[in-house]
Amino acid sequence: MDEVEDLLADVGERAPAPLVRPSLEALTSGGKRLRPLLLILAARMGDADTGDLLRAATAIEVLHTATLVHDDIVDGAKTRRGIPTAAARYGREVAAATGDYLFAETFSGLAGIGDPRLVRAFAEASVGLAVGELEQYRANGATVEVEAYLEHIRKKTAGLFRVACVAGGTLGGLSLAQIDALATYGQALGIAFQMSDDIMDLVGKPGLMGKGIGTDLVEGTVTLPVIFALREGDSGTIRRVLSDPRPSAELLEAGIEAVLATGAVEKTEEWARGEIEGALRDLSLLPDCPERDFLESVASEVVGRDA
Amino acid sequence: MDEVEDLLADVGERAPAPLVRPSLEALTSGGKRLRPLLLILAARMGDADTGDLLRAATAIEVLHTATLVHDDIVDGAKTRRGIPTAAARYGREVAAATGDYLFAETFSGLAGIGDPRLVRAFAEASVGLAVGELEQYRANGATVEVEAYLEHIRKKTAGLFRVACVAGGTLGGLSLAQIDALATYGQALGIAFQMSDDIMDLVGKPGLMGKGIGTDLVEGTVTLPVIFALREGDSGTIRRVLSDPRPSAELLEAGIEAVLATGAVEKTEEWARGEIEGALRDLSLLPDCPERDFLESVASEVVGRDA
Repeated sequence: MDEVEDLLADVGERAPAPLVRPSLEALTSGGKRLRPLLLILAARMGDADTGDLLRAATAIEVLHTATLVHDDIVDGAKTRRGIPTAAARYGREVAAATGDYLFAETFSGLAGIGDPRLVRAFAEASVGLAVGELEQYRANGATVEVEAYLEHIRKKTAGLFRVACVAGGTLGGLSLAQIDALATYGQALGIAFQMSDDIMDLVGKPGLMGKGIGTDLVEGTVTLPVIFALREGDSGTIRRVLSDPRPSAELLEAGIEAVLATGAVEKTEEWARGEIEGALRDLSLLPDCPERDFLESVASEVVGRDA
Repeated sequence: MDEVEDLLADVGERAPAPLVRPSLEALTSGGKRLRPLLLILAARMGDADTGDLLRAATAIEVLHTATLVHDDIVDGAKTRRGIPTAAARYGREVAAATGDYLFAETFSGLAGIGDPRLVRAFAEASVGLAVGELEQYRANGATVEVEAYLEHIRKKTAGLFRVACVAGGTLGGLSLAQIDALATYGQALGIAFQMSDDIMDLVGKPGLMGKGIGTDLVEGTVTLPVIFALREGDSGTIRRVLSDPRPSAELLEAGIEAVLATGAVEKTEEWARGEIEGALRDLSLLPDCPERDFLESVASEVVGRDA
């Protein structure tokens, strides 16, 4: 993973001059690197060329970063992980070019591997990411059903988790059945990961005191716990927060309380656990090895994040 | 070329549902298809697989279209080729997702060919396109030197012309020396093409009466004839038009007149002709065949556009 960090910094440093700083900042702002980790673990279950493996692991994080940079433009987000977004610091035009550069670098890096299956898988995932962001935008403030929510996070979060696992399995030369099991694992893990993120937005991060900060509510994003809470709780208050582009601290607090007063968080946790159980079942189709153990613990940790 | 048209329509039709209409409109709004034409002609100088050829020809037009869609967002352009832009008709968010979809489709299509050199060449060109658009944005209203202008159009226009020729030559299995000659031809043709476009913005299209519409001046884009005119003409008037975000019809007319009163258009024509002469010299390194004749006539036509 250290080598991936170095390669990510290289991508930033070899950017065209006006994009070096925004690229470097976006690439090295301390993400969890979960997607490259999944890719490497999946590949190590087989026998992958180390150079190809590092290229693909770097490419998937570069693609992920490209979508974050573009999403922050569309959402008008001012900060991410506590630091100013490229759009906020350098303006929309520079941020758009930075995202385009990172997107192109993804495919340029993949070209070095020379396996068209990877290029196609990454391209398909990025189509899903583009459409997913759009659906999120469209759903803002409107009524969202569980199925639409699932469809959205399948594209927006689970797609890249799935591709990470598939690309790794492909590079490792695993059998189609094994790659298929990894794909299902990655998809379920991504869904559970997103649900866990949705919960943390309401209850706060594990290990930290206090409530969540309700960013999704402020942005009008209807997450799964919010969908559940709208059905059984004080939907008037929740809708007021969702539809207010700049809710007061009191209104936001009331909105979070209104969600937490229902069983919405518990229902979401239960759903996420169900996804993880499915993911673990799929892993059991793969050979027993240290990497499989690691993938299992990644899965368990995702639902444990909010415990 | 008819098959390329069909494949372009297919790309629009298989877009995710909310992007079908904007994609189709962007892909089938009647561009000149010069890039796919160049690619096909270059490939036919050798021996290319027809399926691969059509995929690559489609991909280069899809990439070109993706950059137009994204550029129209950054520029805030309301119409292109007389019809509303995706950004104007569907909003920035849908337009951004449409551009991302087309971008991803480019690489998905290329993956079907299975030649990593093409993926890398397209990715490099698209990095250039992203940065070129940014430089254009930054140059608006400011003083621009000839060298900066050339650097900009090398990336923004000539890059894709060059890649079209290189990709075609690669698919045709030409020798490296021949591909190199095609690359230099494509680059020079692209530069001349852009200069000819710059001139038409001032003097109007061939065959039509009257002056140009001065869109570049209105947008504050400093083109080569404008650079020349600023040096030797009524620079005060020209600068007033460039710096006014909404110049009156009278001011715009005066600005166009001020440029035309100098030898700027003639100087630009001369430069474009020099580029074309270079392009024709490079073509002479290629075997004498109907495709070469066609490439020669494409080049001659570019400088003849404003005659």
